Amino acid sequence: MKIFDEIKLDKDGSSEHLYIQLYKVLKALIMEGKLKKGDRLPPIRKLSELLKVNNVTIVTSYRMLEEEKLVYKKVGSGTYVALNFQNHENFFQEQKTPLIDQGHIQLEENAINFASATPSTDLFPVDDFKKVLNEVLDRDKGSAFGYQESQGYYPLRVAIKEYVATYKIVTEISNIQIISGAQQGIDIIAKGLLNHGDYVMIEGPSYRGAMAVFESRGAKIIDIPLEKDGLSLQDLEKKIIAYQPKFLYIMPNFQNPTGISYSLEKKKKILKIAEKYNLLIVEDDYLSDLNFCNDENITLKSLDHKDLVIYIKSFSKIFMPGLRLGFLIVPKLIYKEVLLAKHTTDISTSGLLQRALELYLKRGIWQQHIKYMSTQYMERFEVMVESLEKYMPQEVQYSLPTGGVNFWFKLPEPLSSKELYEIAVKQQIVFAPGHLFFLSSKEGSYFRLSTAAVTVSEIEYGIKKLSGLINELIRKQNHHSDQTNGYTPIL
Amino acid sequence: MKIFDEIKLDKDGSSEHLYIQLYKVLKALIMEGKLKKGDRLPPIRKLSELLKVNNVTIVTSYRMLEEEKLVYKKVGSGTYVALNFQNHENFFQEQKTPLIDQGHIQLEENAINFASATPSTDLFPVDDFKKVLNEVLDRDKGSAFGYQESQGYYPLRVAIKEYVATYKIVTEISNIQIISGAQQGIDIIAKGLLNHGDYVMIEGPSYRGAMAVFESRGAKIIDIPLEKDGLSLQDLEKKIIAYQPKFLYIMPNFQNPTGISYSLEKKKKILKIAEKYNLLIVEDDYLSDLNFCNDENITLKSLDHKDLVIYIKSFSKIFMPGLRLGFLIVPKLIYKEVLLAKHTTDISTSGLLQRALELYLKRGIWQQHIKYMSTQYMERFEVMVESLEKYMPQEVQYSLPTGGVNFWFKLPEPLSSKELYEIAVKQQIVFAPGHLFFLSSKEGSYFRLSTAAVTVSEIEYGIKKLSGLINELIRKQNHHSDQTNGYTPIL
Repeated sequence: MKIFDEIKLDKDGSSEHLYIQLYKVLKALIMEGKLKKGDRLPPIRKLSELLKVNNVTIVTSYRMLEEEKLVYKKVGSGTYVALNFQNHENFFQEQKTPLIDQGHIQLEENAINFASATPSTDLFPVDDFKKVLNEVLDRDKGSAFGYQESQGYYPLRVAIKEYVATYKIVTEISNIQIISGAQQGIDIIAKGLLNHGDYVMIEGPSYRGAMAVFESRGAKIIDIPLEKDGLSLQDLEKKIIAYQPKFLYIMPNFQNPTGISYSLEKKKKILKIAEKYNLLIVEDDYLSDLNFCNDENITLKSLDHKDLVIYIKSFSKIFMPGLRLGFLIVPKLIYKEVLLAKHTTDISTSGLLQRALELYLKRGIWQQHIKYMSTQYMERFEVMVESLEKYMPQEVQYSLPTGGVNFWFKLPEPLSSKELYEIAVKQQIVFAPGHLFFLSSKEGSYFRLSTAAVTVSEIEYGIKKLSGLINELIRKQNHHSDQTNGYTPIL
Repeated sequence: MKIFDEIKLDKDGSSEHLYIQLYKVLKALIMEGKLKKGDRLPPIRKLSELLKVNNVTIVTSYRMLEEEKLVYKKVGSGTYVALNFQNHENFFQEQKTPLIDQGHIQLEENAINFASATPSTDLFPVDDFKKVLNEVLDRDKGSAFGYQESQGYYPLRVAIKEYVATYKIVTEISNIQIISGAQQGIDIIAKGLLNHGDYVMIEGPSYRGAMAVFESRGAKIIDIPLEKDGLSLQDLEKKIIAYQPKFLYIMPNFQNPTGISYSLEKKKKILKIAEKYNLLIVEDDYLSDLNFCNDENITLKSLDHKDLVIYIKSFSKIFMPGLRLGFLIVPKLIYKEVLLAKHTTDISTSGLLQRALELYLKRGIWQQHIKYMSTQYMERFEVMVESLEKYMPQEVQYSLPTGGVNFWFKLPEPLSSKELYEIAVKQQIVFAPGHLFFLSSKEGSYFRLSTAAVTVSEIEYGIKKLSGLINELIRKQNHHSDQTNGYTPIL
């Protein structure tokens, strides 16, 4: 291919290693779309002759590309480009949970990614953020790189107090704790509050990353079943009495994975129950900014007059995951425990990024950005709804969320979403099988589709294809049932 | 004061809140040295009249400055500038451990800071880092803000493999795990390896931040006394047999707090013992780059042929603490546990900062920077040694480290370093009392001085003053003993 003839490596030794140079060039070709999925890379010997470098240089750079899943090897055949870079980045975002859960990932090629709940990188406000980063560096110089207070950069906490006020949350600056992303928020709350053997309550189903943290603390997890308007109050109260849990972890708006939003009435009742039993509630608000259908998705924290709600907010979904920034609003009661846990976890969050985010929030740029993100997600949401109505077999149960990016489905029994997953992966469609979100893996018929990392055209194509696969499974099942019925002796 | 007449606030409402504007102006005046320690801020009413703003605006901005410890209130007298900004930043760096340990900090004014083991912000390579940051943003755009792989950005891991090779450590890219600072390294190792009730071994004395993590995991901590050339081998072997610990946590070069470096012989013997009992060793290498006296300070990891050493390296001390970046070299045996722990802790370290550091390392700029840092620290080290020889009372025991920033002292019994601390704080000298570094707080006569955040002139002045205070304490003690002797009836 002509493309490889044009590769120039800098061999005078003053530049970086040859294998890294080559890795970069090839990666750039893939990123720019000049090398496409399925394109074969030249054989080792051929490229080494062409570029006049050692075989090992080629082998090493191919291996680097392979480790990044940009290329894959076919035994006896060669090395091939695995996927477009853009999709690759998306794929790795939230796909990690199933990845870890399954021990390995089977995908080697480009795929439509309904598994990731993280926005595509093309939605990020890079230019704006570059501006504020440089302003911070010019203004603060070395101070921007010093340790920041464990609780967080004070002016950022001031800015966040104003930010949450726009969401009707009234709090003090001293209650705001900066964190390196929502996952760390869950981690330090667990560290601050949970001891070995303590009970903690979650929704069933819930976020796997939270369960892993609680398990790691040696806590015992109790799940409360979700109803259409939020968790079962009867069950909640019964289990509070039975287990006296340290806290309840919930996502009252666009719950992950179900997309359910709690009714206002239920939010208020849960707060009353919390008050009655002096129960702390951890509210993981990962997406309440993306509300498409009504104005009722207020946070539990904004209704919390007794200071019993620990509020977790990530900026990963609405701004940029790579920032690793978020914040907690911590009730006075447990403020010290959480601060100490933050300190022992990583001392403090990057001061540079905190200072940049402060400027970004203060300038009001975030409001435009959230508007932009909402428009983008809204479009995906609408196409998703249309496609589902058009293609999804009637036998599959689901109810539409009022916002966010997650859709939750139930296959007709006895179909298994793991089985569907394995078939779909081969057709280059990935999603999250439901057993990942349950405490026990018995719940085999559910699955989650996210619209965060798929384009509008991918949504339509993907839902059509996935629906076809489900239809096939249903047909096979029926056929199989018929056969079975036919052979079953009447008792 | 004329300075306040010149303050201009933007009142047209399009800009930021007035109290934040005022806070920024005043902070800038302090940072630039236009307002100095002891300067009184105008009374609330007076400034509100002068600037034609609400009283509350003034109160709020003063309170913000106060929360940052830039000013302090004297009851009935007014608000005063507390310290120079530069020193303030330093002060908060490592001072946090004693801060948390004691519940509160008594300092309100500028102080000579022998407590912080973190470099002054003026040593940071800000301009170089700004360059690489911008290059990354131009090159990678949105990808720089996407989630990074939990194990870390691949090219950074390649760069680190080369970086550690210059320290004679041979490892694979797959063994390198990126972390958000050394504290997180300790935290995820503990999460990956320690269960409730497990034993873990440390040096006595050791780093408080590590003990806090192990305690938080519900582990039982056993300490091994330090000798002049490293920990006691006899004690080590005895306790391995008795407790079967999950791992041993040590700092073999310029140990914190003692400054001790293990002899090469002892390093080798410890590795043999580890091999014999199949014991994992966590080597926290926070400063081996700063070696002033000999070439023997090689890392344990470079001698580790059985893959039993988990190596922790922070970039905080030699580059910039605010980066919150470091790495682990993880033995194959426990690779999965550590990766999973990293994932549940904060999913991944900021991709933007990882990419910037990769460029910074690749360019070789770090070598020049470490040379520069070494020269700076070497000068402080020499002045420290001279000052100690000149002023420190003979009754105080200490031995000189061969590098690093920590010096360890023992007061003559029964003098207490806590008592010395309280007297010294009033004289604007802070240091770390020794009880912070021991499992039991019985060890009351030790203390640590660090030269990381003090200037050459502060070192000389500070050691002279501190020595004077110790001399006074010794004199008082002797006087007191004489008196007591005088009154004690002969038995």
